[in-house]
Amino acid sequence: MITVLAGGVGAARFLAGLAQRVSPREVTAICNVGDDFEWHGLHVSPDIDTVIYTLAGIEGELGWGLRDDTRVTLAALAGLGAEAWFGIGDRDLATHLLRTERLGAGVPLSAVTAELARAHGIEVRLLPVTDDPHPTMVLTGEGELPFQEYFVRRRAQDAVRGFRFPGALDARHAPGVIEALREAEVVVIAPSNPFVSIDPMLQVPGVRAALEQTRARRVAVSPIVGGQAIKGPAAAMLGALGHEVSALGVARLYRGLIDTFVLDTVDATLVPDVEALGMRAVAIDTMMQGDDGRRRVAAGVLEALDVSPS
Amino acid sequence: MITVLAGGVGAARFLAGLAQRVSPREVTAICNVGDDFEWHGLHVSPDIDTVIYTLAGIEGELGWGLRDDTRVTLAALAGLGAEAWFGIGDRDLATHLLRTERLGAGVPLSAVTAELARAHGIEVRLLPVTDDPHPTMVLTGEGELPFQEYFVRRRAQDAVRGFRFPGALDARHAPGVIEALREAEVVVIAPSNPFVSIDPMLQVPGVRAALEQTRARRVAVSPIVGGQAIKGPAAAMLGALGHEVSALGVARLYRGLIDTFVLDTVDATLVPDVEALGMRAVAIDTMMQGDDGRRRVAAGVLEALDVSPS
Repeated sequence: MITVLAGGVGAARFLAGLAQRVSPREVTAICNVGDDFEWHGLHVSPDIDTVIYTLAGIEGELGWGLRDDTRVTLAALAGLGAEAWFGIGDRDLATHLLRTERLGAGVPLSAVTAELARAHGIEVRLLPVTDDPHPTMVLTGEGELPFQEYFVRRRAQDAVRGFRFPGALDARHAPGVIEALREAEVVVIAPSNPFVSIDPMLQVPGVRAALEQTRARRVAVSPIVGGQAIKGPAAAMLGALGHEVSALGVARLYRGLIDTFVLDTVDATLVPDVEALGMRAVAIDTMMQGDDGRRRVAAGVLEALDVSPS
Repeated sequence: MITVLAGGVGAARFLAGLAQRVSPREVTAICNVGDDFEWHGLHVSPDIDTVIYTLAGIEGELGWGLRDDTRVTLAALAGLGAEAWFGIGDRDLATHLLRTERLGAGVPLSAVTAELARAHGIEVRLLPVTDDPHPTMVLTGEGELPFQEYFVRRRAQDAVRGFRFPGALDARHAPGVIEALREAEVVVIAPSNPFVSIDPMLQVPGVRAALEQTRARRVAVSPIVGGQAIKGPAAAMLGALGHEVSALGVARLYRGLIDTFVLDTVDATLVPDVEALGMRAVAIDTMMQGDDGRRRVAAGVLEALDVSPS
């Protein structure tokens, strides 16, 4: 059994590769909900949807949304004077309608997520880290912004000073989350943003402790390659918050949480510094272009742990 | 000032003609909400939307929805195994999203309707008869069905035994409704279904009394022409409920509520029987094809009352 702590695009691609290297029924993804927000009254779970769409092989060209989706409703909303800065496509909209309808009927997010995954034929088990509201707030020079306001509406242009998780204390881990960490043979921290994808999950009471105490082998994959984030603001956040903008900077954040750190071959010179933190470090090609790349990275991570693919 | 009791397509076409014959600012439409229903968590107000779209000149080919709309989201919902029997188009969806978002924020339906009308550049004042839930239930051989289940899902195939208005006793008339009836110079009962468009409005406490007591001249336009409904199940309902299936059958339903009854020239032979009910009867061409037809019918109704268009 392999449990993956998953953010958005990077995690989704990793999971898609993993589900081709091992039986998808042996994989559980614990998903970040810190990016969730309300779009014209609909509950949108961007990270969960990115994982679902990518595992279903229908994700958009940039990794999120749906491939070749149209935006008729979005244009009509704009025409009526409504906010239209978050680009929801017409086919994508069906997911948000169904999710919101089911949540409104009292079904918890974890059960709705399982329903949506099933409707897409996905065999990987997807668990939102919590069924409770647990938004990521970004502290910036312009004040505190909900994640999507910071990331999409303002295009991540504001200097980041920190994060706040107002729901964290009251959020209960969703059913199965703690067991998935405790009972796994391997826990993978996916190549996701440590601050706004992984940390929000660790903030849910019990999750960090379960990761610290599990007997699983624990490995993280660096989302930083050659000092750049593959996608998104991870590098800018590392710098703004005073961390080294490198795979080593990420490895430091995960000290005590992992035994093995996988970084890209272009960062192979950092291996001794990472190992000096008290963890193994393994350099592989972490680029996940295409199905081949995804499978190769999943295989490389498992080999770094000496886990033979089934 | 002219107040129109309005159902769906017939009323919308009449209003579109009227708004070209008199200043639209002098016209108030009181709109039926008995057809309102929830579509995947969204509040849909079919009659209000038909009036808005028709007054904006963007209504669909069959009189409802939007012209040349696409149905990408609907198809995606069906693909996910969700119910898709009510055909909401992609541009249309923007209206339902905005309405639901605003209702969720605590804005009453009357205020949301005014916002949507304004966004469409409509100067006719639109008032839902009530801001409260007030659904029309259709009693059939198959049991009691919400209106859209009867009308759209089951294609009006069930024998109708009657109607029930479970919200009627608790529904309060929306702000302005009673004044619009009391202070009007003319009240028009539009060519709408008497049972499921007009009667639901009269069931809201205070509305029937205001119509009975107003000093306005009151006129109804027959939705039945030559024994057939122009649109929808009005003729079948008249027959199923033991009424004469003709304009005369409709006029009988409106006894005490109107002073003048406008029927089609093909039914001119019914004029003496209608007048025997204690109301004037005027036969005109009531067909509303195209803008010309709509204007002609509005002018004919005003002339029947000897009201000169401004």
